[in-house]
This record gives sequence, C-alpha cells and structure tokens, in this order.
Amino acid sequence: MCELLGMSANVPTDLCFSFTGLTHRGGGTGPHKDGWGVVFYEGLGVRAFHESRASAQSDIARMVQNHPIKSEIALCHIRQANVGEVCLANTHPFQRELWGRYWTFAHNGQLNGFEPRPGFYEPVGTTDSEALFCDLLNAIRTELHRDVDLTTLTRFLVKHSDTYAKLGVFNLLLSNGDWLFTYCTTKMAAITRRSPFGPARLQDADVTVDFGTVTTPSDVVSVIVTEPLTVEEQWERYEPNEWRLWRKGEVFDQGNTRTDNQS
Amino acid sequence: MCELLGMSANVPTDLCFSFTGLTHRGGGTGPHKDGWGVVFYEGLGVRAFHESRASAQSDIARMVQNHPIKSEIALCHIRQANVGEVCLANTHPFQRELWGRYWTFAHNGQLNGFEPRPGFYEPVGTTDSEALFCDLLNAIRTELHRDVDLTTLTRFLVKHSDTYAKLGVFNLLLSNGDWLFTYCTTKMAAITRRSPFGPARLQDADVTVDFGTVTTPSDVVSVIVTEPLTVEEQWERYEPNEWRLWRKGEVFDQGNTRTDNQS
Repeated sequence: MCELLGMSANVPTDLCFSFTGLTHRGGGTGPHKDGWGVVFYEGLGVRAFHESRASAQSDIARMVQNHPIKSEIALCHIRQANVGEVCLANTHPFQRELWGRYWTFAHNGQLNGFEPRPGFYEPVGTTDSEALFCDLLNAIRTELHRDVDLTTLTRFLVKHSDTYAKLGVFNLLLSNGDWLFTYCTTKMAAITRRSPFGPARLQDADVTVDFGTVTTPSDVVSVIVTEPLTVEEQWERYEPNEWRLWRKGEVFDQGNTRTDNQS
Repeated sequence: MCELLGMSANVPTDLCFSFTGLTHRGGGTGPHKDGWGVVFYEGLGVRAFHESRASAQSDIARMVQNHPIKSEIALCHIRQANVGEVCLANTHPFQRELWGRYWTFAHNGQLNGFEPRPGFYEPVGTTDSEALFCDLLNAIRTELHRDVDLTTLTRFLVKHSDTYAKLGVFNLLLSNGDWLFTYCTTKMAAITRRSPFGPARLQDADVTVDFGTVTTPSDVVSVIVTEPLTVEEQWERYEPNEWRLWRKGEVFDQGNTRTDNQS
C-alpha cells in the first residue's frame, strides 16, 4: 500500500513540514520505499518531483523538504509497490492535460477485476492506478462538456469513485489546480489549520513548527493524509465512502455515498 | 530568445557538466533569466524540473547540477521571454502523453502568423511554443497511425517543421523517449563524444571534466545545443533547415530540406 498527502490553501503555502513528515515514512519510519512524488500547482503550471527510490534516503526529497515551494494545491505520494514494477513511470502523482489544464492524480489501493475502457488517455507505466486515472479522464472527456459546472463535475467524480470503490481499496487525491477532490474507502484524515495558529510536532521526525510565526490571520490551510502526520493535534478521519471537495483550504462540498443513500 | 540543450546517449549518462554550462547563461553569463526546465527520461518515465526564475541563481538548478541523474535522453531549456508572461505554465520543456508514451518538447524562436488548429491537445500556458507543440501532436494523432514506422514519422516531423519554419525562427528539440528529433532554422550545434574520451572545459563556468574517467570505451554521448558549451572542442554547426534524428548517441537519420530539394 501507499500513503497520500494533499494540501489545499487559500494563500500560496509551502508543504515543507508535512512533506518532511510523510517522506520519513518512505523507507524510514514506514515501509513505503518504492518511490515518491509530489506536484505543486503554481498558477496554471505544475512542478513535479518524482523518484523511484526511498524518499527517506533521497537527496532530492531532502531538497524539497528544505526549499519552500509555495502553492495553493499540492499532492504527494509515497509508494509501496504491489501492481507494477518499481520504476519512474510507475511513480505517482500522474499528470495529464485535459481542457487546457493539468490534472494530477495520486491513489492508494488496489482494485480487483478493474478493466479500463480504451480511450484517448493511455497509461505509460504498468500500475492499475495510472490505468484508473486514464479511465476516469476518458470518461470525463467523453461524457461531460468542457464548460461543465463544478457541482455536476463533482457528482460525476463521486459516481465514478463509487464504481471503482466497489472493486477494492480506492483512496484518491485528484486536482485540476482549481480544486482538490478526495475520496476515501479505508483510510484518510484531514486537518484544517486557521487563526489562532498554534505549534505542531511531527510524529515521524523531531520537527516542530509554530504556524503562528509563518502565517497571517486570514490564512486557511488544510492537509489531507492517509495517516495523521502530527501528534497533539486533532485530525478528523474520513468515513468509508466519504468524499470532500477542497477549495482554498476549505471543504467546498462533501458527502458520503454510503450514508447519503440510506433512508 | 532562448537556449536549448539536448542529450542522446547509448548508456544512461548524467547531464551535470552540460547542464552547469547552460544554466550559468540563465541570468549569469547570458540573459535567459525568465525560467528554466529540464526533463530526463528514465525508461518510459520522465522526471522534470521547472522554475520560472533565473537558473543561475536557483537552488534547484544547483541541485540538478550536482546530483547525477542518469538518462539516455534529456532536454533542457533556458528562457528569455518574448510571447507569454514569465510563469511556470510558460516554462519549457512541455510534456504530453501520446500513444502511451511521454512526448517532450523545447523550442527556441518565434513564429509570425501561426494559427494552431483546434484539436485534442491544448496549451495550458500562453506561449506560442506550447501551442505549436499541441498543434504538432494533434497532427500526428490525426494523420498517423500509432504503429507508424520511424522513417514515416520522421518524414512527417520534417514536413511539419518545414511548414513552421516558414513562419519565423524554429529551433526544435522533440522526443518520445526513444529518439530525439532536432530541427534548426538559425542556431544549433552538436558534438559526439566517444572513445578515446578527453577533457573538456566549460565556456561559462570554471569547470573541467575528464570524460575518460567517467565513461567506458563503448559509451557514445551526443550533446545538441544552441551555442557550444565548451572551449577547445570541435562542435559541428547545423545548417539552416537541417534536421537530425538522434538515437543512442548517434545520428540515426538526417537531412536538410533546403539542400535536399535542390537539383
């Protein structure tokens, strides 16, 4: 399995603290040693860093830990391979252009009997995650119009996520740079930090930060992860089949298709 | 204008020496201070580094200079903006997936009256270079079959390059990870290093390397640039409308549509 980290903020914010915590689990405090990757949106552009080796021992990961790259949306993944060999092409997050924007995708889980439909987008590597990403983009492109409103798009993402989730474990981060869509079948937790900001301490490294010294009172920053990254903070765990659409640090839309459908 | 750097090798080779030379010109010994980017193929995967600031003053560029990333094909670009603001989305090389492979593109020049045809691939930023890349991929996708042989594909790339070149300056690096296609209208030079390897000294930084100590006798490494990077070596300049397809460090195919057509 793998671990995910997403960030949504209302002001360009660096990911150094959370990224440091997560990447310690990539072959250090955790077993996810088969590669790591992170994407940062900067306006419409995306910067990506990927490596098919353990993040805990990576010079490039260390540089990203210490070099503040400010972004309103970031996605990160550390990999413990199951389907697909350990190589750069199989390292999340994956990225494709759709309707003149970069869409990025990171996934934790494994689907049984998943059969991607042929379409325009094709995987380059051999993971079922990338095949799934291409399948989802092909569906969006085929079934929706480029001017689709966000509510309709979100319902579409939820519907397809529910279908994938029926096949196994499907914990998802997906973004087009405007919003961050998250879906959980097994493990996901989130925290929203806002004024008054306090200190936080990583679980996986001897690192503490006082967010009060690096923020302004109007900042809102949310972090979404597989497992909480800090101690002494209250993380909120997603329920199975819960989804949230994040925008500018806040939950913009949310639901749970298991409980929403119950009467 | 901008400067380009491409590498084709028959064995995974790091770009540290040439990258150091080029990136010194990005706001240091040269005026190309509006961003830089580099992509390295590793199998079918691609690692990319991009920044919308001067490479000569960049911590990330310094890390790439000093951290050997081994690749058989690499493309690099330093930007001096003309069309399109200075931002990450406008920073070359650009990347798209086509037929299950990552295609990457870096361009130096400016076209007058270029009108991209609408198609599947769309630019994310506002440069005419990215629009041109999308236009070329749309043409490939529409007019060729995915099992096209390399000779037919190359002729197609040459024909389209000739058409673009009629509109202005069009110096091109394009790769799908298997080959590196290069086309020159104004400025391009290449060098092929093979056994017996000797020393080389950068023009833009006080850096010397003895390639004999870092290679094996069977290595073949070619570097293609806008302006030669070293002193005391013999670089071969492209003629206007000359193109070369590089593969595993060697010229695999080449021509000059200006002279080839003369009788």
